[in-house]
Amino acid sequence: MTRDIHQQTPRPGGIALRQQESLESSNPPLSFPCLDAVESRTETLQKRSSQAGPEPSYTTGSHLTFHSHEPLLTDWGGVLSEFDIAYEAWGTLNKDRSNAILLHTGLSASSHAHSTPDNPKPGWWEKFIGPNKPVDTNKYFVICTNVIGGCYGSTGPSTIDPANGERYATRFPILTMEDMVRAQFRLLDHLGIERLYASVGSSMGGMQSLAAGTLFPDRVGRIASISGCARSHPYSIAMRHTQRQVLMMDPNWRRGFYYDSGIPPHTGMKLAREIATVTYRSGPEWEARFGRRRADSSRPPALCPDFLIETYLDHAGEKWCLEYDANSLLYVSKAMDLFDLGAEHRTKINALRAKNHSRLERIGGAATEDFSNSDSCSLTLPDKPYQEQEDSAQTMTSPENEPNIQSRPHGPPADLVAGMKALCDTPTLVLGVASDILFPAWQQREIAETLKRTGNRDVTHVELGEEKSLFGHDTFLLDLEGVGGAVKDFLG
Amino acid sequence: MTRDIHQQTPRPGGIALRQQESLESSNPPLSFPCLDAVESRTETLQKRSSQAGPEPSYTTGSHLTFHSHEPLLTDWGGVLSEFDIAYEAWGTLNKDRSNAILLHTGLSASSHAHSTPDNPKPGWWEKFIGPNKPVDTNKYFVICTNVIGGCYGSTGPSTIDPANGERYATRFPILTMEDMVRAQFRLLDHLGIERLYASVGSSMGGMQSLAAGTLFPDRVGRIASISGCARSHPYSIAMRHTQRQVLMMDPNWRRGFYYDSGIPPHTGMKLAREIATVTYRSGPEWEARFGRRRADSSRPPALCPDFLIETYLDHAGEKWCLEYDANSLLYVSKAMDLFDLGAEHRTKINALRAKNHSRLERIGGAATEDFSNSDSCSLTLPDKPYQEQEDSAQTMTSPENEPNIQSRPHGPPADLVAGMKALCDTPTLVLGVASDILFPAWQQREIAETLKRTGNRDVTHVELGEEKSLFGHDTFLLDLEGVGGAVKDFLG
Repeated sequence: MTRDIHQQTPRPGGIALRQQESLESSNPPLSFPCLDAVESRTETLQKRSSQAGPEPSYTTGSHLTFHSHEPLLTDWGGVLSEFDIAYEAWGTLNKDRSNAILLHTGLSASSHAHSTPDNPKPGWWEKFIGPNKPVDTNKYFVICTNVIGGCYGSTGPSTIDPANGERYATRFPILTMEDMVRAQFRLLDHLGIERLYASVGSSMGGMQSLAAGTLFPDRVGRIASISGCARSHPYSIAMRHTQRQVLMMDPNWRRGFYYDSGIPPHTGMKLAREIATVTYRSGPEWEARFGRRRADSSRPPALCPDFLIETYLDHAGEKWCLEYDANSLLYVSKAMDLFDLGAEHRTKINALRAKNHSRLERIGGAATEDFSNSDSCSLTLPDKPYQEQEDSAQTMTSPENEPNIQSRPHGPPADLVAGMKALCDTPTLVLGVASDILFPAWQQREIAETLKRTGNRDVTHVELGEEKSLFGHDTFLLDLEGVGGAVKDFLG
Repeated sequence: MTRDIHQQTPRPGGIALRQQESLESSNPPLSFPCLDAVESRTETLQKRSSQAGPEPSYTTGSHLTFHSHEPLLTDWGGVLSEFDIAYEAWGTLNKDRSNAILLHTGLSASSHAHSTPDNPKPGWWEKFIGPNKPVDTNKYFVICTNVIGGCYGSTGPSTIDPANGERYATRFPILTMEDMVRAQFRLLDHLGIERLYASVGSSMGGMQSLAAGTLFPDRVGRIASISGCARSHPYSIAMRHTQRQVLMMDPNWRRGFYYDSGIPPHTGMKLAREIATVTYRSGPEWEARFGRRRADSSRPPALCPDFLIETYLDHAGEKWCLEYDANSLLYVSKAMDLFDLGAEHRTKINALRAKNHSRLERIGGAATEDFSNSDSCSLTLPDKPYQEQEDSAQTMTSPENEPNIQSRPHGPPADLVAGMKALCDTPTLVLGVASDILFPAWQQREIAETLKRTGNRDVTHVELGEEKSLFGHDTFLLDLEGVGGAVKDFLG
């Protein structure tokens, strides 16, 4: 057998030739316009930074700000001694303050769900909100916030830590969906809204709409959870993991302390957004819209974007890479991974909260513990005892070792039924989309089945088939008829 | 409305505090062991490079090498004036040389499909090959090659270009599946094998097994195409695109000219492998194997790998990042994107090949044009005329513009039927796996339906359901019973 010929070092003659740089290669070198673009942006940012000081803040325009002087204890033991919530509102709060709808956003959205007099730019749910629209501002007072951890006006990693006068950066505490919801309810307290007509949200907002009802069952009249889930599953964690990794590996990320460098990790942000876009939008639509068409079929293929689908992803990344704070992406994305409405997880977190409660006292805050463990209706036990997945699976991490696979138990897990029992009296709409690969339709079926097992008799489950909604996860932003129609029917 | 408070610059007091570095932050900083690991590897590589010269070659051990002195014209107009094919073989070639099986590999595999006396390390299909195994070495002479473009002994970007004595790097020509197959058939010529008993492959190899039959219908007795496709679809292109992008954005990639730097783009390679692993392995298995378990639930959550699924992906990336050549990944991955057995594409490529044929003459080669356009059996026309997707879809690239979606035509596209008509007489096994997200089961159904439309009456289509094969795309490496069983039945 012959040894791998690559083991031979370059011939002396070859080295001599290289020094002369005289002979032509067999084929011309490829060009890399996608790298030129990124390097050019780095240069522009460097120039801007040296001329104009620190980078500008992220903003989507004017909004209202609520400042909480009371500290917030986070689920995992961090403390924000004070915080801001950016919010916007549409419609009119009625006299008895009973017509408020809290609208929860997706990962990177701002409070700007709809245009306002102060900010006429169309919002992310522009067509879904308004007079006689699915979220009808003739009837309802609609509030949307930027989540804490975000970068559009609410306290997040880019905010100055009052304790030392520096940006939090990666000294910001790890967040959960419940932390974000508790902060939102401080705003509701401030607005004098004791009870919501409804908690409505899609994607991450679909998690939060459920979390709100679970934390504050007496303050949430009804819930609409669209393309959300009751707990994150491994594929969605994996895809967010890759986004966080490409971002953190950008040398400009500097372990989160890039704010004064003038150059945010725009390359990592671009890459993260491209990966995210695959999870948001891939579906039958792509076959029809892009198929196998190349951006310019008259040119030879390239390693930089070449197929139309690649230029689409590239554009999505380019457009977004300076629009959102990198650390906010990391913290909010992580909070989604951590979401789990199961009873075991919540019990653990509540014990941790109790243990950490003294941190609030040191700061002098008087926040009250707000976790409610309502037991107002009977728990419907599953027909068969639930076998914990932990018992039936192995925990090794090497890809070589093959696990013993056992079939998944039928019906929703008892742990989830127990964790969601606070919702047993809350009318709920659960909507899923068959072409969604990030929050697949089985996750919404799981929510609906779990709610029914809690004894909830008012669960509406809608699943939009592939023939109706081809847009994958982003269908919630696009399908006014399918998604908007179901929301309108549910809210009344 | 209040303006975004982030627009305020740090307070003078804050700046003073920072200079003193005296006050503690509200919460402790996070640690980043995943970045420590990558930075530590960079340091190790730097040291190794300064002590030991250029980086070692990639190899999976001993193999045979065939050197072609005849040049190879690639589909897109590049030329390799000479090239090597690394290969290994098992079993015995019979007297009339009629029992040879050519085994095609996945993207990053070497020729080492099975252990050999010279290389006892288990191969990537170790359990599938051998006496009385699915690929039975008592009956067949099995050959496996490293593809050209690869880095395990065949000519690829890390090879020295004889024209100038330097590594090809990104002056290597763009490749196609057909280029790889043509190179393999040069090896068959060398071995005196006029006709294969079978062309067998999985994943990228599933593309190549079809390409071999299409290019050389008279030289391929039967085809097994496992978890492959007849043309790449947008999701798979998108996922490979993100892998290429994260790799090319690694500063150590240096536009492909990293060979003498001592530090290959190991960070980009790690990230690319993590993304790839999601596409290879996600499936119901992950729910049972990893679920929502954290690697160490006694520790607080982290932005670095934390959930078990994250440590799994991290491990997969760590293990691989120095095992394969980065440029090989780019070229072979790109070749997969370009795969399209449709007639329109092939006609275009053939015209290009005719135009570029003079490049071979300049080099003095005498390669014969080997594309066969067999018309030996009648073409079954579809019931309804095929409406080109190009006519029914828009071509804009901005995510904001919403396309008009029209339902996909029923049955296989006429263009694909025409492109695959050379296979109308070739017995074919097509195998798909329901849990595969990279080469989804509809793609294998498409192959089978297309073959039937060509008039082929010997098409076996097997689809392994989720209850049988939970491993996603990598099922072809793992499921000896489902995949191996079908292959054994087919080969006889």
